[in-house]
Amino acid sequence: MKLYTYFRSSAAYRVRIALNLKGLNYEAVPVHLLKGGGEQRQEEYRKINPSGLVPAFQDERITLTQSMAIIEYLDERFPAVPLMPHDAPGRARVRELAQIIACDIHPLNNLRVLRHLVQELKLSEEAKTEWIQHWIREGLSGLEAHLARDPAAGPFCHGGSPTMADCFLVPQVFNAQRFGIDIKAYPNIARIDAHCAEVPAFAAAHPSKQPDAE
Amino acid sequence: MKLYTYFRSSAAYRVRIALNLKGLNYEAVPVHLLKGGGEQRQEEYRKINPSGLVPAFQDERITLTQSMAIIEYLDERFPAVPLMPHDAPGRARVRELAQIIACDIHPLNNLRVLRHLVQELKLSEEAKTEWIQHWIREGLSGLEAHLARDPAAGPFCHGGSPTMADCFLVPQVFNAQRFGIDIKAYPNIARIDAHCAEVPAFAAAHPSKQPDAE
Repeated sequence: MKLYTYFRSSAAYRVRIALNLKGLNYEAVPVHLLKGGGEQRQEEYRKINPSGLVPAFQDERITLTQSMAIIEYLDERFPAVPLMPHDAPGRARVRELAQIIACDIHPLNNLRVLRHLVQELKLSEEAKTEWIQHWIREGLSGLEAHLARDPAAGPFCHGGSPTMADCFLVPQVFNAQRFGIDIKAYPNIARIDAHCAEVPAFAAAHPSKQPDAE
Repeated sequence: MKLYTYFRSSAAYRVRIALNLKGLNYEAVPVHLLKGGGEQRQEEYRKINPSGLVPAFQDERITLTQSMAIIEYLDERFPAVPLMPHDAPGRARVRELAQIIACDIHPLNNLRVLRHLVQELKLSEEAKTEWIQHWIREGLSGLEAHLARDPAAGPFCHGGSPTMADCFLVPQVFNAQRFGIDIKAYPNIARIDAHCAEVPAFAAAHPSKQPDAE
């Protein structure tokens, strides 16, 4: 199994957590998002992912992109350590939480979007940071309210063991903190993030622990 | 079953297609995204979806947001007309295609983002349209390349019957055309979209056919 990854990519970070939680060995293939305008945009990598984004995953059956699709595939192929609940409403809830991050927060603060804001729309560094913080705050407020009202939220996003939702929450918190957001404003998110940090599978997936970390 | 919907919301449109494909009756509760600064942002609706976005779905078991989570939930609860393939790589592929749209294209052209670009960043109408077209073209190019290389792509995104991926493709094409993109530049996407248009379940979900259409 190969994971095309970049240490600071939030989407790659999610898949690294899932692979670690399942105890799977994989080959990490680094794709440098900044070098030479971005290795992910070059022809060589587009043979793997025509969209020119990380992560991408390969096993003997499939070449797959999109972190959520990869994690659900891993969960179906290696069910021993499940990352999805056993009941339909539970699975729906976990997907909902992951998608709040994957669809409502992260896409707006992606490297390619930030680059576009600065290079095409001529935003100042300050205005760029405001943009990032605005969408993260907007998204985390919604996520916090979802967690606060959900009786299934436990030490992790959904119950007492990690699910796909936690694989999404932790990288988003990392990202938020990188851009100066005080996560204490979101007590449920902060609590779950702190709990995850104690789990070795999460800790080992941290950007600073990757072979390509700078 | 209730669907909180807005006729032109691309995410609500996806769920309407899925409900129709499964032949399910539902109550459409219109949420006007423009009236009074947006009904979706008001306290009343935030009790349903704290994130202040449409769609939201309710049955006797769950209140659920996020179009992809809703569609997978419907598919698990009402499996008679499946919207997901029976094999793990097939499901992964369908999720991947849906997520290319849900994570890489649509979030950047959402109403709230366009509003922010104009009101906060003072973009002109022309610059706003350029922004929209840029991200749609970028995303559709990737999607087209994925479909072009995938032997499983058939009359629909994945094989000979509609899947969740088609529920995402059709509203994104509608959106692209609304903003002046010529879809013929993407032959696989154009072909699948035309094929879907002939299926009554897709046609009946079209924004122009909704009770709240203007």
